[in-house]
Amino acid sequence: MLNITRRQFLTMVGAAGGSSALLKTSLALGLMPDEPYTGPVKVKPAAKGQNPTALILGAGLAGLSTALELERAGYDCTILEASFRPGGRNLTVRNGDKIDEMGNPQICQFDKQENMYFNCGPARIPGHHRRLLHYCKTLHVPLQIKANSSKMAYFQDDKSLGGKPKRIVEYHTDARGLMSELLWKSADSNQFDQLLSKEDVAKLKKFSKTYGDLTENGKYIGSDRGGSTTDRMLDYPSPRAPIELKAMLDSSFWYGGLLGSETYDWAEPLMEPTGGMDNVIKAFLRNLKRQPVLNAQVKKIFNRGSGVEVTYEHGGKFHTVKADYCFNNIPAHFMAGIENNFSDNYQSGLNAIKRGHLFKIAFQMKERFWEKDGIYGGISYSKDAIGQIWYPSHDIHAQKGILLGAYTWNEKATKMFEALSQEERLKAGALSGEKIHPGYSKYIENGITIPWSRMNHQMGCGLRMSHDNFEKYYHVLQKPEGRHFMIGDQISHHTGWQEGALASSEQALQQLNKMLAANFNIGEPNYVS
Amino acid sequence: MLNITRRQFLTMVGAAGGSSALLKTSLALGLMPDEPYTGPVKVKPAAKGQNPTALILGAGLAGLSTALELERAGYDCTILEASFRPGGRNLTVRNGDKIDEMGNPQICQFDKQENMYFNCGPARIPGHHRRLLHYCKTLHVPLQIKANSSKMAYFQDDKSLGGKPKRIVEYHTDARGLMSELLWKSADSNQFDQLLSKEDVAKLKKFSKTYGDLTENGKYIGSDRGGSTTDRMLDYPSPRAPIELKAMLDSSFWYGGLLGSETYDWAEPLMEPTGGMDNVIKAFLRNLKRQPVLNAQVKKIFNRGSGVEVTYEHGGKFHTVKADYCFNNIPAHFMAGIENNFSDNYQSGLNAIKRGHLFKIAFQMKERFWEKDGIYGGISYSKDAIGQIWYPSHDIHAQKGILLGAYTWNEKATKMFEALSQEERLKAGALSGEKIHPGYSKYIENGITIPWSRMNHQMGCGLRMSHDNFEKYYHVLQKPEGRHFMIGDQISHHTGWQEGALASSEQALQQLNKMLAANFNIGEPNYVS
Repeated sequence: MLNITRRQFLTMVGAAGGSSALLKTSLALGLMPDEPYTGPVKVKPAAKGQNPTALILGAGLAGLSTALELERAGYDCTILEASFRPGGRNLTVRNGDKIDEMGNPQICQFDKQENMYFNCGPARIPGHHRRLLHYCKTLHVPLQIKANSSKMAYFQDDKSLGGKPKRIVEYHTDARGLMSELLWKSADSNQFDQLLSKEDVAKLKKFSKTYGDLTENGKYIGSDRGGSTTDRMLDYPSPRAPIELKAMLDSSFWYGGLLGSETYDWAEPLMEPTGGMDNVIKAFLRNLKRQPVLNAQVKKIFNRGSGVEVTYEHGGKFHTVKADYCFNNIPAHFMAGIENNFSDNYQSGLNAIKRGHLFKIAFQMKERFWEKDGIYGGISYSKDAIGQIWYPSHDIHAQKGILLGAYTWNEKATKMFEALSQEERLKAGALSGEKIHPGYSKYIENGITIPWSRMNHQMGCGLRMSHDNFEKYYHVLQKPEGRHFMIGDQISHHTGWQEGALASSEQALQQLNKMLAANFNIGEPNYVS
Repeated sequence: MLNITRRQFLTMVGAAGGSSALLKTSLALGLMPDEPYTGPVKVKPAAKGQNPTALILGAGLAGLSTALELERAGYDCTILEASFRPGGRNLTVRNGDKIDEMGNPQICQFDKQENMYFNCGPARIPGHHRRLLHYCKTLHVPLQIKANSSKMAYFQDDKSLGGKPKRIVEYHTDARGLMSELLWKSADSNQFDQLLSKEDVAKLKKFSKTYGDLTENGKYIGSDRGGSTTDRMLDYPSPRAPIELKAMLDSSFWYGGLLGSETYDWAEPLMEPTGGMDNVIKAFLRNLKRQPVLNAQVKKIFNRGSGVEVTYEHGGKFHTVKADYCFNNIPAHFMAGIENNFSDNYQSGLNAIKRGHLFKIAFQMKERFWEKDGIYGGISYSKDAIGQIWYPSHDIHAQKGILLGAYTWNEKATKMFEALSQEERLKAGALSGEKIHPGYSKYIENGITIPWSRMNHQMGCGLRMSHDNFEKYYHVLQKPEGRHFMIGDQISHHTGWQEGALASSEQALQQLNKMLAANFNIGEPNYVS
């Protein structure tokens, strides 16, 4: 074991049995997709004397990463961005920044301090989002751990447990305990005798006892894993009386916080760029030879056989530009308004992409009151429309902090917020916060709201597509039509995450490499199908 | 609700019904012990013209915090420390630092860089250790989130699951799934009909389904909460085949990583001082008027009625000093060698305090190979003697890192390591690491080992006391004998944690305040019993 690496072993297997044997062995060893990531697609470098060109539509993460890899291969890239700013939904706001909501433009009033920022879009990175992490590493974006879960934070539902906020650690401990007690009971009453040997039933009882912190007789009577009613530093710990089974079953927190942290994208620990998520965007911009053209709204896209022709408006004038390739990061639901010559099937695919709603509030709090309550980051869950409250986990013990006061992608809740005035939104957020933290409102100094469905040039959040449409069109949109490639998290299996956007750019560039390897005939559109 | 705080409400209740009504109401509201911490004990200030004196024996955290609070009240404190350094078990080592193991003194060879440090003793702070957090805040010790759990880290046991390392996220997801499947099965076969209404049984099935990610028929067939065998960014996620129930029951990870993170002291998120845990010690020293006398070994402690007389050796000479009070932070198992005039009962209490074993290894790794494997902090669990591997969660994506290569308080394992030479210890650590990370050894540049039972002036770690002795002597040692107060985590219900040490100092100073309030008669020892 000391002298042979897994990769060496796989190389031997590969040599002996070909790539199919390699794949099977990899899967058996549990190595897929765990093998070290080797970095983004290397685009086939332009031949000497050639100056291939590309138009990148949209300066979101997919557009920027596509441009970077193309530039590295010697392409001349023009990035057209409709908004006044690059980054797309990767938006971090600080003092003085404009929040470009249509009909409700806001200027962020947070204190003018480095640490007073809010990530309106993506806000966390799990350890297995390898494409994004690779860029953070190689483009020098400093990362820090982000506390995504806090056991000290709360659940609150007007209709559960008397409406009182319940610490997650308490609910969590009781859920495990009550569940384990039932399992122990079943095992004890020979329920699993047909399924398991006597010995295994004994192990199952031990497992339940350990898992739920049960008594010797398999009873759950509370557990100091959920805290203590005494000062456990100076006295024996004494658990609270547990939630009753019936109340647990009637409560609404099974999903939310109890299971939220069980999804793979929330596998601890999560990370965030130090100083704001837009440091990812800034890092790409730093490394691009040509900066995006801002305020450039695309009006026409035409495959022209020998390239792609794009017309855009900029400074009150129309400009038509042509390039060998076009990578299109525009939210697909805007494509209906952009003249083009795509095939009907490709058009139908674009039309099938709908956008989700998503709403966030951020409050500047004049005091980090939550830290006095033992909360240092993580999320409280509310059954009110706000959905969640996030506590910042950077700048611990600073005087002030930016608190996420609402985060919901529930359509009903987001539409409710969208219909409210700015003041009403903030007030609704404050009132729901009061139910978890009495006195919450009095800490609020100012706030912003971000309804992504009303944000100029986005008008929506992640992809929403029916399963049938996804089956029908995803593979169509994954491939280029002519020399036009769709990109963005909208062309991935993982919408709403930056890693999905980067994956879309990766697959587009792989398709480009395929074209180039096949000596793509310049005059022949739809060559790769 | 907007206009009344919980505290205001409680004040009204208190006014109406007295403190018993207050306590009951507090408990009912779930406010105990969650009420905001108001800071350390304020020692009754010395009267004008008085210069009360105190001797503090041992410059560990309990000693330093006692000295700080006494100085704030106008006391003149002399801190005597036997070692060449203050801090006790709060020990962070960097390049050139001496690790004072008896018979095996080591000099740390880590690269001379700010981020290359290792916390040999305490290394993390939960959000509810309010005393320590209060000091970090008020003494300006910058904190950061420490990733204590990583779902991407591993379990490994030669005897379980074929000895192969298993990602925690996979084991964890399967454990929940299999458990939920059994629960669903019991509910489905009317096992709980006597206990629960038909409606509640239906809820229980739904709960199990949600909790375990079961199929509509209550089967657990794997879950993408544990990852995917496909690239889920570009394809449908496809879960691994789950661990079989029998293999799960035969495996050894039920406690360890599966439940470790369920203990209250590990309630996420945990924190660490930026730059090393010894920044806590440095902060106290910065705020003390008089610095500890180092290399001062106490030989005699005598209660003298009007004060306490201590004799210590320093620079080859014996010195006798006297003070109004003495706060003794010396590990109690050293007290047998210190001449004194304590009562037999108090002596017996001190004798009953034994010390646990604890062993750590730290390796400087020339590359942060674990990050390429998706691990950004947290702990892998091994059934080998090393017990755990910790990955640093600060300085993400730096070239090198200090990895904890062993952490065990198992007596057999620690004694095994203690008996080995330095080279053998590091080799044993490397070999166990290889089982989790093939190629591990080749990243090791140098290493240190910390067997706390062999560390000069500590010779042990947390308190070990039989339950009977604890019952018999804890309350004896909590109180002063004469003007001599025992302190340290050894005089708490929470040994091995800095919060326990601070609590011990708090209770000693409360006792002092009691003495002062009773107009303690200087000539009368054992006045407060």
